[in-house]
Amino acid sequence: MSDNVNLKCSKRLEEQIGFIVEMDKLKNILRETRLIFQHRLENDAEHSWHLAMMVMVLSEYANVSNSQQLDLGKTLQLVLLHDIVEIDAGDIFSYADFDPAEKHRNECKAADRLFNLLPTDQAKYFRDLWDEYEDQKSIEAKFARTVDRLQPFLQNYFTDGYTWRKYNITVDRVKKHILRDMKPGSDALWAFVDNILDEAVAKGMLLPEAAEA
Amino acid sequence: MSDNVNLKCSKRLEEQIGFIVEMDKLKNILRETRLIFQHRLENDAEHSWHLAMMVMVLSEYANVSNSQQLDLGKTLQLVLLHDIVEIDAGDIFSYADFDPAEKHRNECKAADRLFNLLPTDQAKYFRDLWDEYEDQKSIEAKFARTVDRLQPFLQNYFTDGYTWRKYNITVDRVKKHILRDMKPGSDALWAFVDNILDEAVAKGMLLPEAAEA
Repeated sequence: MSDNVNLKCSKRLEEQIGFIVEMDKLKNILRETRLIFQHRLENDAEHSWHLAMMVMVLSEYANVSNSQQLDLGKTLQLVLLHDIVEIDAGDIFSYADFDPAEKHRNECKAADRLFNLLPTDQAKYFRDLWDEYEDQKSIEAKFARTVDRLQPFLQNYFTDGYTWRKYNITVDRVKKHILRDMKPGSDALWAFVDNILDEAVAKGMLLPEAAEA
Repeated sequence: MSDNVNLKCSKRLEEQIGFIVEMDKLKNILRETRLIFQHRLENDAEHSWHLAMMVMVLSEYANVSNSQQLDLGKTLQLVLLHDIVEIDAGDIFSYADFDPAEKHRNECKAADRLFNLLPTDQAKYFRDLWDEYEDQKSIEAKFARTVDRLQPFLQNYFTDGYTWRKYNITVDRVKKHILRDMKPGSDALWAFVDNILDEAVAKGMLLPEAAEA
C-alpha cells in the first residue's frame, strides 16, 4: 500500500486490502483469445471467472476413481488464482515458442512478490494452492487445467476459429498444446474436443495437419 | 445452441456448453465502476472474479456465531453467479433512482431464461443459489453481499472517488446504499469503511452530507 494512504485499520487488514487492490491489475492482462459476442481480446480476470463457471457446470466430467470426490471449493480456488502471476509475468500464448523453464521461473518470481503482499499465513495458503496447480498431481489441479484448456478452445470454436486463423494454427498443434493437457483431468471432455476437431478443420477454422518435413 | 452447430455430444453436454457460451455475454455488461489501474469501466465478469478473490482473502471477517462456520465454497459460488441475470436485465447503478420491485421482476425473468439453458437438475441448483443470494438469509449470502458492496467502494476510493465525483455522490448516500448493506455480513468490514468515510469527504472524493431540505 502506498505511503500516503492511511486506511486506519489493522496491519493485517491493510495488507489484505493492498493485495485486493493489486489484483485489479489482472483485468489489464490481455490474452490472445477473443470474446464470442464482442470483437475484443479477453483479459485474465474475465477468463478466470469463466473457468470458475465451467468448473461449476462441468465438474461431473472430472476423472475421479470410486474412492475419490472432486473438492469443488478447492477447484474453484485453483482456477480463480492460477493466472494471478501473469500480473508480473504476462500471458504467454499457448502456441508461442517459449522456454517452459524460463516461464516457470518468471512465474515463481511473480508468485513470491504477489502472494507475499498478504499476511504470512494467507501468503502460504495462496502459494500452496498455486503450487498445487503447477504440480498437476491432485484431481482438482488436473481438472482445473482441463477447463483452462477447454475455455479458449470454445472461444475459438464459437468465433469461427478467430485466433487459430489469425496465427495459421494447424490441428496437430491443437492436439499437442490443448487436447493433450485435457486428458489427465477429464477423459470425457477430452473426447468431446477430439470428436469435433475434424469438423473444425472441414469448416476452415483450423488448418489440416502439417505435412512431415 | 444455434441450429447449425453440431457438437456431436450428449444432449446434456450440449446444453451445458450452450450455457457456458451464453455466459461470455457477462463480459459485455459494463458497470459504473472504473478500474484502478486503467481508465475504463469494469464489466460484470471481472467484478465477479474480484469478489471471489475478496471472499478468499476476507472470509475471516464474516459475521458468524460460535456454532457456525462460513461455507467458503458456497460463498464463492454465490458471488460468481449473483450477477449473471444482468446479461438480460442489465446493471443498475447503486445510486440510480429505480424501482426495486421492478428490478427484481426483470432479474427473475432473466434467471428463468438463463438458468434453464442448463439441464434441469443444474438449472435448479443454480437457481437455488441465486435465490439464496437474493433472499439474504444465510451467512454466506450476507457475506457475499458485504463483499459486493465493498468492492466498488474500494474501486472508488483508490481512483480518487472517480464515480462518486462523476455523479456528485454525497457521503450520506454511500451510508444508505453501500454501508447499510455491509453490516449484516460483516461488522468488521462495515467498521473499516465507516472509519474512512470522513477522510474520503475531507479529500474531496465524496461530497459532504446533503443539507436537510
